[in-house]
Amino acid sequence: MSERLMVIGSDAAGMSAASQARRRRGPGDLEILAFERGHYTSFSACGIPYYVAGVVPEPEALIARTPETFRSKFSVDVRLRHEVTQIDLDKRAAQVLDLETGRHWWEGFDQLVIATGAVPKRLPLPGSEAAGIHGVQVLDDGTALRRALETERPRRAVIVGGGYIGVEMAEALTIRGLEVTLVDSGPQPMRQLDPDMGARVTDALCRLGVTVLLEEPVEGFASSGGRVEAVVTRERTIPTGLVVLGLGVRPNVDLAEQAGVPLGPSGGIATDRRMHTPVEGVWSAGDCVESFHLVSRKPVVIALGTHANKQGRVAGINIGGGYATFPGVLGTVITKVCGVEIARTGLNERETREAGLDCLCTTVRSTTRAGYYPGAKPMWTRIIAEKRSGRLLGAQIVGEEGAAKRIDVLAVALHNGMTVEELTSLDLSYAPPFSPVWDPVLIAARKSWELVEEGMLACK
Amino acid sequence: MSERLMVIGSDAAGMSAASQARRRRGPGDLEILAFERGHYTSFSACGIPYYVAGVVPEPEALIARTPETFRSKFSVDVRLRHEVTQIDLDKRAAQVLDLETGRHWWEGFDQLVIATGAVPKRLPLPGSEAAGIHGVQVLDDGTALRRALETERPRRAVIVGGGYIGVEMAEALTIRGLEVTLVDSGPQPMRQLDPDMGARVTDALCRLGVTVLLEEPVEGFASSGGRVEAVVTRERTIPTGLVVLGLGVRPNVDLAEQAGVPLGPSGGIATDRRMHTPVEGVWSAGDCVESFHLVSRKPVVIALGTHANKQGRVAGINIGGGYATFPGVLGTVITKVCGVEIARTGLNERETREAGLDCLCTTVRSTTRAGYYPGAKPMWTRIIAEKRSGRLLGAQIVGEEGAAKRIDVLAVALHNGMTVEELTSLDLSYAPPFSPVWDPVLIAARKSWELVEEGMLACK
Repeated sequence: MSERLMVIGSDAAGMSAASQARRRRGPGDLEILAFERGHYTSFSACGIPYYVAGVVPEPEALIARTPETFRSKFSVDVRLRHEVTQIDLDKRAAQVLDLETGRHWWEGFDQLVIATGAVPKRLPLPGSEAAGIHGVQVLDDGTALRRALETERPRRAVIVGGGYIGVEMAEALTIRGLEVTLVDSGPQPMRQLDPDMGARVTDALCRLGVTVLLEEPVEGFASSGGRVEAVVTRERTIPTGLVVLGLGVRPNVDLAEQAGVPLGPSGGIATDRRMHTPVEGVWSAGDCVESFHLVSRKPVVIALGTHANKQGRVAGINIGGGYATFPGVLGTVITKVCGVEIARTGLNERETREAGLDCLCTTVRSTTRAGYYPGAKPMWTRIIAEKRSGRLLGAQIVGEEGAAKRIDVLAVALHNGMTVEELTSLDLSYAPPFSPVWDPVLIAARKSWELVEEGMLACK
Repeated sequence: MSERLMVIGSDAAGMSAASQARRRRGPGDLEILAFERGHYTSFSACGIPYYVAGVVPEPEALIARTPETFRSKFSVDVRLRHEVTQIDLDKRAAQVLDLETGRHWWEGFDQLVIATGAVPKRLPLPGSEAAGIHGVQVLDDGTALRRALETERPRRAVIVGGGYIGVEMAEALTIRGLEVTLVDSGPQPMRQLDPDMGARVTDALCRLGVTVLLEEPVEGFASSGGRVEAVVTRERTIPTGLVVLGLGVRPNVDLAEQAGVPLGPSGGIATDRRMHTPVEGVWSAGDCVESFHLVSRKPVVIALGTHANKQGRVAGINIGGGYATFPGVLGTVITKVCGVEIARTGLNERETREAGLDCLCTTVRSTTRAGYYPGAKPMWTRIIAEKRSGRLLGAQIVGEEGAAKRIDVLAVALHNGMTVEELTSLDLSYAPPFSPVWDPVLIAARKSWELVEEGMLACK
């Protein structure tokens, strides 16, 4: 008799699980049913700012695979606009609500993948329910925002929150010709970066024409006739026709928690390395799960499409009868503000302290190509190494075209627990159009190793 | 009493050694004397094709540090146009010839760095001494070639040898408006690549307008009045006003060999990981030394500026009283033919066979950015993995802008002995302007792992 796999949430994690399970088990052996409360499957949330900017013309471009493809190519029965409202682990069944008709019923399952994703953090502030205040979490948010831009034609926008979503939305709305203000309660945008690198992001935003207001907590929203008219901070009132909230997300675990699926200390759903929860036959993947941070060795919740895809794939392979594991995350992030590229991996200086590690930090300036080669652009590479051991703990890059993707070299080095001394001997590629003869990553590693060595000598 | 360090050859390896030794030992403790038979110190040989193309206007741009800088900032006494003609290891002295005056004499040393580099391979062919036949090994070759282009204004050029120098020179001369033919005795240009990737390089050259003649050994040169007029292959006679030889190089070890400094099985000077030869106080670095290949575990000679810089630095740190090692090389190479970028690391399919390894190979097509993001370019990633273990053995990338530098991720993975299965879980950076959500490297790793797994299942 065939088993039934139910998938809750049909974005990257859920549908990667479904398609990998299908790859290994045919429809006669495994029935797959997926419920999605939204209008889309497998869309690129990371692409939303570029769709809003108009750089990507149509929202359909952001959809990797449609429900029709899942049905016809993968025999996965995807039901959009269907929300799972309750899970009964004893009865192995879930209550489903058809959001269009209001009908609800119970569906049984043998195996379950919980891929409920994340929900935007909202501030409990006066006026935050006014029209004109947008999140950018799901594709529907993106289409709503773009529609607002095209129909309401606001002249000004305020972005609340300077994380990478906030920074990308500041770029997007500037491209669309709006006068943009970015407000953040902290001392810099991109708090994942150390202050010297964060300052470069502030510079980039300012050069773009964005007004950046830091250490200014938002206290509320003024509205008129139900429409937002201004953002009120501790310092001032900023008139605006449009507000975008980029305050980050929290794992969407209410359903799992109510059903009795255990959460980890970080607040995400706990799984083992095979993405199996402590409940037999229940798997989880994506923004709702807790991950293991490979450098801090601590549980973390990081909402990123790359993890969702990998975790979903791992769950699906295991459901399909194969064997795969997801070892953990490094906290790698990349983004850009027009011509300025930004990336980080591992721990920043503050995070090393929080992890109880003692570190030495260095930032070096170099160029993306040989200095004499046309188009060589400045870039800054920051390396955070453990004092004494010289073990790489984290890295950050800010620079112009061709700079940021080099962070991957440092991510692989981190994954393997390399020291900065070992890094200096890496056989990285070199030709003048691609790099100086000492690759920027290696220059930073050399400098970092010199600091570690000086520290060692000073201890003698 | 102060020691005397003599450095033979003042390019990347020799001068990195000199400056690192100086960093740790002051002029009162260590006298440093460097002899260079050419006209320049520390120049970028890899930049020559771009100087010839005119992309880099002046030859001085290729010089990282001048003799004056070495004298004033590092107290290194550099003598240009001085050739060391003999080394007496018993007397700890070297015979020096002033190439300008013809005078020669003996200079003593306590420590010696042999950084004599490489010499171009030449074919013992009739007519190969004619004017108009150029090598591109040292900066003087580059200035001679560019002078020939500017004064003789040849319409046609023939490049002999399709290695990366040949390919870069084909691009350079095409940019200068010449009609270029590239002749190679092998079945493809860039023999470091597997055939499917090599074919993409041939395509790129043809699209550029270069005539590519393969499996056509050159048999000689026709000349008139001492000037080359044609290249004669087994198949045809190709009229030309200019010939560039890109046949690769061999380590320049005659001086060391005559002195009794042992060579390794690959023909390069043998050193330990600290770049010390078996002769007490004699060090060697750069194109003249033998390196350890970290994947094949065999001795190799690879002439590359990156290795020369690293090895020189290691020798200098050790001479200076510090401790540093050079663990070996991966054979990483990167280059481009106009818009087509090319890179490789580790072993190719043929080399795995030569190393006695059994491999599985896969090439996947993907894009440099998210498919929907403007400027996403096609790229092909090839992964060579060990059968059974799935250990990464090598990788190749050919693609458009933004493709090739990703080879570094695979170089770091190789350095750490990762399997392709481990690669699939790497936390590489992702945002639509930089990568698809599955990075091209990870897509290739996934596909490669599927092949390895199929092989495992087939063995059951």
